[in-house]
Amino acid sequence: MSGRLIGVGVGPGDPELLTIKGLRALHEADHVFVPVGDTGEVGRAERVVQTHLEPERTRRLLFALSDDTAARAENWERAAREVSEPLRCGETCAFATIGDPNVYSTFTYLARTVKNHVPEVNVETIPGITAMQDLAARGGTVLLEGDERLALLPFTAGKNVLQSALSTFETVVCYKGGSRLREVLEIAAAEGRLEDAIYGSRLGMEGEEVIGASEIVGRKGPYLSTLIFSRREREFG
Amino acid sequence: MSGRLIGVGVGPGDPELLTIKGLRALHEADHVFVPVGDTGEVGRAERVVQTHLEPERTRRLLFALSDDTAARAENWERAAREVSEPLRCGETCAFATIGDPNVYSTFTYLARTVKNHVPEVNVETIPGITAMQDLAARGGTVLLEGDERLALLPFTAGKNVLQSALSTFETVVCYKGGSRLREVLEIAAAEGRLEDAIYGSRLGMEGEEVIGASEIVGRKGPYLSTLIFSRREREFG
Repeated sequence: MSGRLIGVGVGPGDPELLTIKGLRALHEADHVFVPVGDTGEVGRAERVVQTHLEPERTRRLLFALSDDTAARAENWERAAREVSEPLRCGETCAFATIGDPNVYSTFTYLARTVKNHVPEVNVETIPGITAMQDLAARGGTVLLEGDERLALLPFTAGKNVLQSALSTFETVVCYKGGSRLREVLEIAAAEGRLEDAIYGSRLGMEGEEVIGASEIVGRKGPYLSTLIFSRREREFG
Repeated sequence: MSGRLIGVGVGPGDPELLTIKGLRALHEADHVFVPVGDTGEVGRAERVVQTHLEPERTRRLLFALSDDTAARAENWERAAREVSEPLRCGETCAFATIGDPNVYSTFTYLARTVKNHVPEVNVETIPGITAMQDLAARGGTVLLEGDERLALLPFTAGKNVLQSALSTFETVVCYKGGSRLREVLEIAAAEGRLEDAIYGSRLGMEGEEVIGASEIVGRKGPYLSTLIFSRREREFG
């Protein structure tokens, strides 16, 4: 009797960007877990889930956003222990994660740690809309057509990585660059890719911003911001 | 009075991978268009839409899959004229497209041609799950974590493009390589990227195939197939 752990991608923030499959998984699960930070603030994933489920159906898993590797590992351990208990009894646990559970998701780490505790667990994922796709839609930007290529990377991979992608790929999407926006935009300008770039943050939520990247030069942004460098102007919308 | 043209991404094939937002757009539109080939076969997008809407709600737009550029342009023209009529009266038209409407989608071409006919039209898109995401979920493959980068490209961009991406990017996704699968897999083998690669076709539909790429060496696949070259083994599932 082995339980099922399902990573459910709930999209970037707009509760309606959840898939029908994801919604059904949340409804059918014995337990629905949502990650929360230690600030007490309701997280994005929790907000989406709350739109669709009764509040008492969700269980909050505390993930302190710590730069301390040991503290983070301790977080994973505690969270994994909590999720492992019902899994050992053969129950189904859904874990709601923003975006897609296979794209830069906390779910990957959680699932690995749970597997250490309950090796026979069945791990599944249900895809979710990524911020890149939502920004393209809201910004009227075509991501790819014909023979074009796209590079998706986090700015934390390094300046050279972004620079090299901008010089080669028709479309480049940069995540996690918000706090170092000035550096990101300097590189883009040097590569001649600032003009047709678009910036988005808090997509589908209060305070949403979708704006041409050239208009935010000199500003800072939140960690979870998205930049799309395209070969063409914003075409629609 | 300007109409709205909405490109609705309906996902790769599984009717449940449509978003709640996409479903609402299909329900609320005055007209729902689906692309069909000239073989009379029900297309993927149409199949998803048929699961959720009454058959008489959908209007089929014929797109002959022709290698002849002039014939294809003629197709776009005819389709655009049909969609433009209700748009001129201020009505809302939804166009269902597999995957995401901003990722290698026929919607881009249709919207452009419609804009020539009805310049004041409001073009919108609603993101949809891509085949890459669905294959990752069904195959138990993590696409990205930490500082990793992903390259998404069509094999039609050329052998060198694939080769160069495989030598640089932690994750590479190759579309449209089905009919030239042998060449794709030869390049992957030469780059040492065959072992941890996964192949998928007809995802979420009858005849679905999700299989390690090393097991299909020597075979051919359909045009709409997906390959994920990852840095790690299939981890879950």
